[in-house]
Amino acid sequence: RFGEVESEDQVGVVTGLAWTEVGGELLTIEGVMMPGKGKMTVTGNLRDVMKESIQAAASYVRSRAVDFGVEPPVFDRKDIHVHVPEGATPKDGPSAGIAMATAIVSLMTGIEVRKDIAMTGEITLRGRVLPIGGLKEKLLAALRGGIKTVLIPEENAKDLADIPDNVKNGLEIIPVSNVGQVLEHALVSQPVAIEWDEEAALLEKKALEAKNESSATMQH
Amino acid sequence: RFGEVESEDQVGVVTGLAWTEVGGELLTIEGVMMPGKGKMTVTGNLRDVMKESIQAAASYVRSRAVDFGVEPPVFDRKDIHVHVPEGATPKDGPSAGIAMATAIVSLMTGIEVRKDIAMTGEITLRGRVLPIGGLKEKLLAALRGGIKTVLIPEENAKDLADIPDNVKNGLEIIPVSNVGQVLEHALVSQPVAIEWDEEAALLEKKALEAKNESSATMQH
Amino acid sequence: RFGEVESEDQVGVVTGLAWTEVGGELLTIEGVMMPGKGKMTVTGNLRDVMKESIQAAASYVRSRAVDFGVEPPVFDRKDIHVHVPEGATPKDGPSAGIAMATAIVSLMTGIEVRKDIAMTGEITLRGRVLPIGGLKEKLLAALRGGIKTVLIPEENAKDLADIPDNVKNGLEIIPVSNVGQVLEHALVSQPVAIEWDEEAALLEKKALEAKNESSATMQH
Amino acid sequence: RFGEVESEDQVGVVTGLAWTEVGGELLTIEGVMMPGKGKMTVTGNLRDVMKESIQAAASYVRSRAVDFGVEPPVFDRKDIHVHVPEGATPKDGPSAGIAMATAIVSLMTGIEVRKDIAMTGEITLRGRVLPIGGLKEKLLAALRGGIKTVLIPEENAKDLADIPDNVKNGLEIIPVSNVGQVLEHALVSQPVAIEWDEEAALLEKKALEAKNESSATMQH
Amino acid sequence: RFGEVESEDQVGVVTGLAWTEVGGELLTIEGVMMPGKGKMTVTGNLRDVMKESIQAAASYVRSRAVDFGVEPPVFDRKDIHVHVPEGATPKDGPSAGIAMATAIVSLMTGIEVRKDIAMTGEITLRGRVLPIGGLKEKLLAALRGGIKTVLIPEENAKDLADIPDNVKNGLEIIPVSNVGQVLEHALVSQPVAIEWDEEAALLEKKALEAKNESSATMQH
Amino acid sequence: RFGEVESEDQVGVVTGLAWTEVGGELLTIEGVMMPGKGKMTVTGNLRDVMKESIQAAASYVRSRAVDFGVEPPVFDRKDIHVHVPEGATPKDGPSAGIAMATAIVSLMTGIEVRKDIAMTGEITLRGRVLPIGGLKEKLLAALRGGIKTVLIPEENAKDLADIPDNVKNGLEIIPVSNVGQVLEHALVSQPVAIEWDEEAALLEKKALEAKNESSATMQH
Ligand SMILES: [Ca+2]
Ligand SMILES: [Ca+2]
Ligand SMILES: [Ca+2]
Ligand SMILES: [Ca+2]
Ligand SMILES: [Ca+2]
Ligand SMILES: [Ca+2]
Ligand SMILES: [Ca+2]
Ligand SMILES: [Ca+2]
Ligand SMILES: [Ca+2]
Ligand SMILES: [Ca+2]
Ligand SMILES: [Ca+2]
Ligand SMILES: [Ca+2]
Repeated sequence: RFGEVESEDQVGVVTGLAWTEVGGELLTIEGVMMPGKGKMTVTGNLRDVMKESIQAAASYVRSRAVDFGVEPPVFDRKDIHVHVPEGATPKDGPSAGIAMATAIVSLMTGIEVRKDIAMTGEITLRGRVLPIGGLKEKLLAALRGGIKTVLIPEENAKDLADIPDNVKNGLEIIPVSNVGQVLEHALVSQPVAIEWDEEAALLEKKALEAKNESSATMQH
Repeated sequence: RFGEVESEDQVGVVTGLAWTEVGGELLTIEGVMMPGKGKMTVTGNLRDVMKESIQAAASYVRSRAVDFGVEPPVFDRKDIHVHVPEGATPKDGPSAGIAMATAIVSLMTGIEVRKDIAMTGEITLRGRVLPIGGLKEKLLAALRGGIKTVLIPEENAKDLADIPDNVKNGLEIIPVSNVGQVLEHALVSQPVAIEWDEEAALLEKKALEAKNESSATMQH
Repeated sequence: RFGEVESEDQVGVVTGLAWTEVGGELLTIEGVMMPGKGKMTVTGNLRDVMKESIQAAASYVRSRAVDFGVEPPVFDRKDIHVHVPEGATPKDGPSAGIAMATAIVSLMTGIEVRKDIAMTGEITLRGRVLPIGGLKEKLLAALRGGIKTVLIPEENAKDLADIPDNVKNGLEIIPVSNVGQVLEHALVSQPVAIEWDEEAALLEKKALEAKNESSATMQH
Repeated sequence: RFGEVESEDQVGVVTGLAWTEVGGELLTIEGVMMPGKGKMTVTGNLRDVMKESIQAAASYVRSRAVDFGVEPPVFDRKDIHVHVPEGATPKDGPSAGIAMATAIVSLMTGIEVRKDIAMTGEITLRGRVLPIGGLKEKLLAALRGGIKTVLIPEENAKDLADIPDNVKNGLEIIPVSNVGQVLEHALVSQPVAIEWDEEAALLEKKALEAKNESSATMQH
Repeated sequence: RFGEVESEDQVGVVTGLAWTEVGGELLTIEGVMMPGKGKMTVTGNLRDVMKESIQAAASYVRSRAVDFGVEPPVFDRKDIHVHVPEGATPKDGPSAGIAMATAIVSLMTGIEVRKDIAMTGEITLRGRVLPIGGLKEKLLAALRGGIKTVLIPEENAKDLADIPDNVKNGLEIIPVSNVGQVLEHALVSQPVAIEWDEEAALLEKKALEAKNESSATMQH
Repeated sequence: RFGEVESEDQVGVVTGLAWTEVGGELLTIEGVMMPGKGKMTVTGNLRDVMKESIQAAASYVRSRAVDFGVEPPVFDRKDIHVHVPEGATPKDGPSAGIAMATAIVSLMTGIEVRKDIAMTGEITLRGRVLPIGGLKEKLLAALRGGIKTVLIPEENAKDLADIPDNVKNGLEIIPVSNVGQVLEHALVSQPVAIEWDEEAALLEKKALEAKNESSATMQH
């Protein structure tokens, strides 16, 4: 059922944690990637701060593409759509940032996200993880939803003192301070960095185009 | 008459179910496809959440194009317009999502939609079907409108206990949990998946262009 | 004088019927077509629902271009401007839809619209005609303005019982259920469908381009 | 001084007539044309209805380009800017429509506008002239400003009965019903229509391009 | 210090005069030009009327480019950014128009603006100078800021009667009626007009492209 | 921890100083640069005045690119994203201008920013530094956060009289009047200017393209 742990590991699907007036809640983040032209679409009744957190997550991933084994030009040939279901509910705030980054890395690399992990944390452009509010409500929601592991910002580790023991016993709670640590826990395997030389790629592309034109002419 | 069952199976025409303060109502969703450049137009006095449900439905279909037998580049050569008639009435909410997806699959494949089926359910990017509100009013509207079969979200199956027997006897009510099941019931025949290799297609396109240039020159 | 029947049949000019608090009124719809790039401009102090009715009318025409004898690529080489005069008066509602479709078909085909006909009816993407409000006031305005024939939605035929006899005697009132019927009455001659093969057209275009390049080279 | 008759005939400068709570006023409309890409800019603290009247005027001129001796592709190679000075004053309403059309025709043809003429009238896409309000105040402003000739809509001719004799004696007031009549009075000479064949122009353009490519190759 | 006379003549930097509830103030207008694509950026917490005055100034300069010795295509290869510092203060009104035009002419020609001159006046598209408000407060601010010469609209000359003698003695106040006069006083040297033939330039450009292609081929 | 001095010198990361009702605060500004098309993205819940300060900073850098050793066309091949973390807090005002400029210069040159420096000051298009408010609160925040050196606008130097001695003793406070001085203190090494000739670059680019085409043909 929706609002519970996913039934299998999947590419582009990440569980975030939301905090509303009536308590915490699992927040499924879904991304798909399509042949396209580098367009990013975001839907799900998202307010500006959450939309910006997706932009920051995307730029973090794009600016480190080679670290994730992705050649930068790939971003120009793909469209990405990130959606947060339950369209009737407005959603805001920056705390889904690291979940957004995880979804985008998973899409770009094709590596699945562990189904029994949830996460909360604002992301910065450099991939740092900033603290969030509502830790207790979010952890309760994770426990209720069947989640096994929760990633929280390192700066929130001090707030664990106020969390009931049954919650802390029922969940593996892992403080993280950067997205690298997030991905280590969340992805079923790790991306492998590549070398990529922008200038070389540009030259190679032009040479290929010239060769194509020439081989056509060679049939004279 | 409008607000009743369609008189024949058609491509791109799907019956959704709306829920307003004064009761349920049939909601005709009409799509047309035209030679174009990949533009999507949505009209019918639609509010943001319903507009986003069309975007989600479109991305669901685009990201699974090959499963529906459609080569992805086709999306760049077609414009799609989805319209929800009765322009004087504002329309909102995510519950027409699976109807939108059905309309778009029907347009892209050319397969007709059964005229005596109606459906309600939010769609996610992965094609999951999420629960909706107003089930009773919607089913009453379907019965009144001459509909034979209604697809509802599996998570709403538990609400059938509160539906009067005459409604349940007068309609075939089918709970569904993903768009695949929706299409099985709604389309008059099923799409056939194709293989499609993005890189191969790219190379083939370039070869064709080179050949065209060469054959022109060969007339020297 | 403005607000009365046109003095001659014209291309792109259609008489609609509006309904305001102070009664019905003739609504002149003017379209012009220019060499361009497929841009659609709409003016005349139009509110969103009327603007959307023009979009729906345009997509109806574009998606059936060949039925009207128009090759689809023509839409990319023309700009269309639809204007509803008397800019000081805001105008809204979907009931000018079939008049908009008639104006666009007239522009694309070059076939004139009968000057003594008026019409009211919402259009759907498939060209169905949906019912409208204010029938009595609209018919009175038509009579006052010297109109001879009025097209109304078939679903409004039942409302004719409440229309005074002098109005019904002074006008030929024709219920219609689709745009095909509208055009039969409104255009001075009927469009003739063509065959058009998108793939063949694409190949022909490329062959022509190759030939042009080759003939240039042949002058060596 | 500003607000008085221009000191010489000029291209693209037309005197309109505005009507405000404190009386009528001369409204200078200035247009300039620049090498460009077909962009239209409008400034001068204009509200939507006045902006739309400029769009309607521009489409009227573009759709009849050949009647004014202008080859349609010229519109794609020029930018036009229409400005209504005195930026501190908001301006609205459709009554400057015929003045806008006169300015644009003057720009496109290079024909000067008579400096001692003023005009008021809404324009339709077909170039019809629709009635306006505030006739008396506008005529008083024209007289005060040293204008000799005022063009008014034919449908306002009946309102001349209420205009004081000294105003009617001091001005030549000419009712007009279409833009053709406006231009006859306002321009210092009349545009001469040309023949222009879109398809022929397209072929010629392609032949020229081919010739250019060929002449380059001929230098082998 | 900011709000005082500039320390040297500079390209693209002009001193305007603002008038607020608490008195007059020097308004520095800064422009920079960069290799680009003809984009115009305006910043500095500017409201719509001031933004439009920059657009009018830019079109005035563009439409008279050859009079300023600038070939029109240059506008397509440069981006211009006009900024009015002190971002915390909203700024509005048309009275900085002639200062904007001066800044743009200085940028396009590379001619410096005299550092000890300030100016106020609305600009029209033809380069006429229209009257402004707050003359007294503006002149006081100029005096306080160490300005030597102030350009004011000719139509404001009559208001000099109300200006205290010490202000009139401390400043050279020059009424101007068009931008030509403004530039004569404000620029350290005058632009020299060029001849420019649009059609010839187009042909030359094509010939050059053909030659480039040919010279490549000549290496066979 | 966030809100404290960075742990190492980094490219594109600059510490600004914000001033809110509850006191001063360190403001981390993060920029990343990616292969792209010259797009600038700004996020972090920024209001218009702060957004404009980033635009001004970017134009300052672009218009002086060669002084920083950057060939102007590089700006067209890169996308830049500037983000100010803590998305839940709205941020406004021009006082982060010099920090924005420093971040962009660091990104374009690849030179790291000293980690123990903070700065506050509005930037103008010419790179002048304008005064700011809240100096005392900002200096206190810098001291609290472990910052060693603070750059302040020269025009704020006079306000240092009101700053407690312990603050002035705990920080090196350096007044600056232009961005050149800012960079001297903030960057770990200084950019080296290059020569760049726009026309020569244009010719070289065309020659290269011609050579590429020719070398393809040489394989005949
Ligand atoms: Ca929920
Ligand atoms: Ca799996
Ligand atoms: Ca209904
Ligand atoms: Ca059928
Ligand atoms: Ca009327
Ligand atoms: Ca006719
Ligand atoms: Ca005035
Ligand atoms: Ca003249
Ligand atoms: Ca100030
Ligand atoms: Ca100098
Ligand atoms: Ca903080
Ligand atoms: Ca470092």
